[in-house]
Amino acid sequence: MAEAPRAETFVFLDLEATGLPEVDPEIAELSLFAVHRSSLEGPSRTRSGGLALPRVLDKLTLCMQPQRPFTAKASEITGLSSEGLAQCGKAGFDGAVVQTLQAFLSRQEGPICLVAHNGFDYDFPLLRTELQRLGAHLPPDTVCLDTLPALRGLDRAHSHGTRSQSCKGYSLGSLFRRYFQAEPCAAHSAEGDVHTLLMVFLHRAPELLAWADEQACSWAHIEPMYALSDGPCLEG
Amino acid sequence: MAEAPRAETFVFLDLEATGLPEVDPEIAELSLFAVHRSSLEGPSRTRSGGLALPRVLDKLTLCMQPQRPFTAKASEITGLSSEGLAQCGKAGFDGAVVQTLQAFLSRQEGPICLVAHNGFDYDFPLLRTELQRLGAHLPPDTVCLDTLPALRGLDRAHSHGTRSQSCKGYSLGSLFRRYFQAEPCAAHSAEGDVHTLLMVFLHRAPELLAWADEQACSWAHIEPMYALSDGPCLEG
Repeated sequence: MAEAPRAETFVFLDLEATGLPEVDPEIAELSLFAVHRSSLEGPSRTRSGGLALPRVLDKLTLCMQPQRPFTAKASEITGLSSEGLAQCGKAGFDGAVVQTLQAFLSRQEGPICLVAHNGFDYDFPLLRTELQRLGAHLPPDTVCLDTLPALRGLDRAHSHGTRSQSCKGYSLGSLFRRYFQAEPCAAHSAEGDVHTLLMVFLHRAPELLAWADEQACSWAHIEPMYALSDGPCLEG
Repeated sequence: MAEAPRAETFVFLDLEATGLPEVDPEIAELSLFAVHRSSLEGPSRTRSGGLALPRVLDKLTLCMQPQRPFTAKASEITGLSSEGLAQCGKAGFDGAVVQTLQAFLSRQEGPICLVAHNGFDYDFPLLRTELQRLGAHLPPDTVCLDTLPALRGLDRAHSHGTRSQSCKGYSLGSLFRRYFQAEPCAAHSAEGDVHTLLMVFLHRAPELLAWADEQACSWAHIEPMYALSDGPCLEG
């Protein structure tokens, strides 16, 4: 593909929402960790030699009140509910969310590569839907990397076409357990999942950086998850 | 005093900077956790009954490049340096920081109470200095709570004027160790210290909420840490 400019900052992203794509979900929580390329090329280490989070790390986590109800399953696994969000006085995915997100991203050296696990099928199209609802944009040179097909592809390349790798689990939790022999923290909070994603990325950073440089997809090519049926609909 | 409106959201805050007040420091990292009053009145519990972070928690952490050098001590304890921040392409405390901060705060139900440990002597006046440099404002009904004099005052009231409490340490680390019999995580990263501060607050939430309702100070009464000597200086 090689359509992507070389990203200088990788913004790890996770969304919690009211349900799976078939219910036309709305975002209830988003979390982003922005990490400069230099921190991924030479990761920090703990005293015992393990991978550590980069010291220079910008973070944003916001909760918001969806207009539609949560599915029972989504509420159960995320711990979020319309009642809980209302009690905390949260507004929806509105102009202030967009302003916070855009101002946060403007602090990062570009071009930016958004990184999400299963991003092409969930986080990226859902974020595009919500932004489109508000007529909002990301920087035009933004690209995206989905670590799910990237790690599958890297493992397939290593196994020279045999099926030895293909039976492994590629959920974020499975990858984390395989790489770190530990349970991930706070699964299905947006921030917990971004933390897990960043650790998984750090474990295979040289390969994933090379993959991103060659195969990251332009944000402009991400299609919304679903068509908007109500409210102002400006071009996204 | 009773000058304060009842705050609906408590925004826990910590700043890392280039040094102590005597060097006219600049902010290098800021972290905020926004927690609705309802989450402090009825804190979450872990399965074993311990205090847990609220599920609905908005967070913002930003690193920035100061114009002045770090003192050796500040760089050592924070792990931040001009070189490290430059390598990560970080700009200074600029308009984009203000926009991110203001948009983040606008997502919180007001009035907002900023909470910092030793805030009256460090975080609040330093933040006011940096905002004043850019002519930026916080919401006019914002109030502030410094947990250092608040916890000292509460302990003094409990001890009925005896000196039994006054010898205890009131650093954030001392309080955390006393309340939780554990070491705080990631001391002197802004986010680590905000996490510790929030846990300390949760441990004494009913008393501290009552203290805030009676004694929180208006943000408008916070004086800048130092006079600005260069650049545009608008009223803060």
